[in-house]
Amino acid sequence: MVPRLTTALTGPLLDLERRILERMPEIERWLRSKWQEHPVPFYASVDLRNAGFKLAPVDTNLFPGGFNNLNRDFLPLCVQAIQAAVERVCADARGVLLIPENHTRNLHYLQNVATLEHILQQAGMRVRIGTLLPDVREPTKVDLPSGDSLTLEPIVRDGRRVRVGDFDPCMVLLNNDLSSGSPAILQGLDQPVVPSLSAGWYNRRKSKHFAAYSQVAREFAALLDIDPWLVDPYFGVCGEIDFQERSGEECLASGVGALLERIARKYREYGIEEKPFAIVKADAGTYGMGIMTVRDANDVVGLNRKQRNKMAVVKEGLQVTRAMVQEGVYTFERADDAFAEPVVYMIDHYVVGGFYRVHTGRGRDENLNAPGMQFVSLAFEDTCLQPQFDSSGDCAPNRFYLYGVIARLALLAASLEIEQLAQLHDPALMQQPRKVAGA
Amino acid sequence: MVPRLTTALTGPLLDLERRILERMPEIERWLRSKWQEHPVPFYASVDLRNAGFKLAPVDTNLFPGGFNNLNRDFLPLCVQAIQAAVERVCADARGVLLIPENHTRNLHYLQNVATLEHILQQAGMRVRIGTLLPDVREPTKVDLPSGDSLTLEPIVRDGRRVRVGDFDPCMVLLNNDLSSGSPAILQGLDQPVVPSLSAGWYNRRKSKHFAAYSQVAREFAALLDIDPWLVDPYFGVCGEIDFQERSGEECLASGVGALLERIARKYREYGIEEKPFAIVKADAGTYGMGIMTVRDANDVVGLNRKQRNKMAVVKEGLQVTRAMVQEGVYTFERADDAFAEPVVYMIDHYVVGGFYRVHTGRGRDENLNAPGMQFVSLAFEDTCLQPQFDSSGDCAPNRFYLYGVIARLALLAASLEIEQLAQLHDPALMQQPRKVAGA
Repeated sequence: MVPRLTTALTGPLLDLERRILERMPEIERWLRSKWQEHPVPFYASVDLRNAGFKLAPVDTNLFPGGFNNLNRDFLPLCVQAIQAAVERVCADARGVLLIPENHTRNLHYLQNVATLEHILQQAGMRVRIGTLLPDVREPTKVDLPSGDSLTLEPIVRDGRRVRVGDFDPCMVLLNNDLSSGSPAILQGLDQPVVPSLSAGWYNRRKSKHFAAYSQVAREFAALLDIDPWLVDPYFGVCGEIDFQERSGEECLASGVGALLERIARKYREYGIEEKPFAIVKADAGTYGMGIMTVRDANDVVGLNRKQRNKMAVVKEGLQVTRAMVQEGVYTFERADDAFAEPVVYMIDHYVVGGFYRVHTGRGRDENLNAPGMQFVSLAFEDTCLQPQFDSSGDCAPNRFYLYGVIARLALLAASLEIEQLAQLHDPALMQQPRKVAGA
Repeated sequence: MVPRLTTALTGPLLDLERRILERMPEIERWLRSKWQEHPVPFYASVDLRNAGFKLAPVDTNLFPGGFNNLNRDFLPLCVQAIQAAVERVCADARGVLLIPENHTRNLHYLQNVATLEHILQQAGMRVRIGTLLPDVREPTKVDLPSGDSLTLEPIVRDGRRVRVGDFDPCMVLLNNDLSSGSPAILQGLDQPVVPSLSAGWYNRRKSKHFAAYSQVAREFAALLDIDPWLVDPYFGVCGEIDFQERSGEECLASGVGALLERIARKYREYGIEEKPFAIVKADAGTYGMGIMTVRDANDVVGLNRKQRNKMAVVKEGLQVTRAMVQEGVYTFERADDAFAEPVVYMIDHYVVGGFYRVHTGRGRDENLNAPGMQFVSLAFEDTCLQPQFDSSGDCAPNRFYLYGVIARLALLAASLEIEQLAQLHDPALMQQPRKVAGA
């Protein structure tokens, strides 16, 4: 079941969709040329919002969970793509040490780890799962509702290598976003670590990502001769904020006010009658924590204690010291009575699938990546690889292709961002392009 | 529907299947390392024969038809793989000139061309179809039973480039096996031509392919610690044969006799009670012409006029001057009452699918690639990418994975063969490995 767009698609998005299909050879060539120049992330997922008049990424995850939410029919695409990804990182690899998040009780997340393990195995890897949790001191089996199980093992450091038990992996694959820092046990390894430690959330800033994204979006928009705003959310940054101490509140309020005004001008330009809104987010961190919808500059002034606590701390107790204010993009897609936003998955530079995040308890201007009983996922019914050139109008395979294109713009932005982060972090950690044999 | 193996799988093949699953990480790593060293063919299909006690390739096509026979559900794998293939040949490509066989009336083949066109388009290519047929002087539309259509256009040469109409392609993709020679209009082009002209059947010899295959099979068998014969058909060559003049008949008969004796020894070693047989084939050429099943050395002596005519000439009137005698591999797979043999498709080094060739009018020791009303194709129900590690015994996904491994051994043999052919043909035509960006 594909969530139905509630807007009649006659406006700019349908035009964008048509333009992207028509110029597909130029777009694909341009993307290929970019991957000749920039490092390809091992994998990523991108949250998109489709407002009917605008389609834009709002979050890019370099350590994607949720592989268990993808359509099982298309998992072979993941297997094929992960073969390419492994070949790129380390063609010599047989064994992978997969390091997940420190959630031992989130069975939904652990189901994602089991799915990743399975994909890696079908791609021909031996996989063991190493945990950073200090209280896992021996192999610990976890049974999953699906009937699968997985075994978490303590990571052992030997000189410049890590292992679990007697398993000496050829590479380390992180599915842990390193919110609380770069773990000492993984630093300075001879084994390749992907994504690199420098891409962890302790080091990433959403604002840097979206600055890189704006650069990519401008180039893409020039290729298509469109307004970059149609695919790019405005944003601003407020540094040195302390929600609990209420310092930096005025800076944030004036940032929100200025952003809402810029959005309002664009809405007037396009004759959009919706009310502009903005999202205030922690500049570092993830998991849908530290996120607030604001419709007015005053919304961020005089927050009550509960609101301030919610904003002050994100995952793993990371303190919020910088906030990003991002243009809010309405989601007009819905499944039955609930609002939905697409999440697109990529492995290497291939779009391997996606799902809709559906939240019955949230509005069309709210973050849907929030825990709660009303959250469900809905796998894409089709791949993002099969546009129908002869279909006009509202056609799911064409929409999915479009989503795959915009998601890849975000992937490219992540690549530029990773280049910068690696240089800042440790120039020697930056992986070099590798040569593969040509046909 | 998967053809049912009529043999009870308790013998060497099941053992081989288990061993391949267990050693999958070593096999995949070994294959990856090979593709670092050798050029990757753009695409290929491999005919396999599964005798229950032995599984071997019997023909490798570097210009595969039959993409229309693949399971439509898995065409996304073709789209993803062709993106990789194009990136490897020419990342800068937007437009592809596809050059098919000169069959204007074989609608089944033209449906394959339409499928290839569609896959290339979904991978983001502009595609036009150029024909080598001299009597196509203007764009000619052909309607297909599926409701698709395709337009054949005359190829125009301008200096060191080819075009059709005003379409100047970035690359030329051959789906024409060049049985009758390397077309002058395609020689010395600035545009990349894939597969290279030197890989045409006018230049290939089956015996060279199977010599390369034996080398690959020996290395693979050493990796798995098995007898290479389990995956490698014996063969011999008879040069300077003229079926119509009856010269070379004795050489052929003694070659057949010696081969049957070698097979008989192996059958005794493994306690196989079947009767050995051999296939006599033209050493160059394809399309299931010039092929004969022989069970005794005397079978090739004193052929009647009809038999001699059948053997003397293959596709496009190519004269047979050398014959290969290949170990016959029984097919024990059947769909209902008909014998079936698997054909595996690869694009770049990815296994993208396959189908069974099913022939109700032929026996288990006969070539099934023969035209006729009794020929049907049956797409693989699963991909070749999803082995089930927890299944034992007769399991279709595991068998398909096994087929994908053996087919890739033949692909690797084709790569070694192409290297040799390119060096013999024109060292300058040999494509160099290209660099791609690393993660």
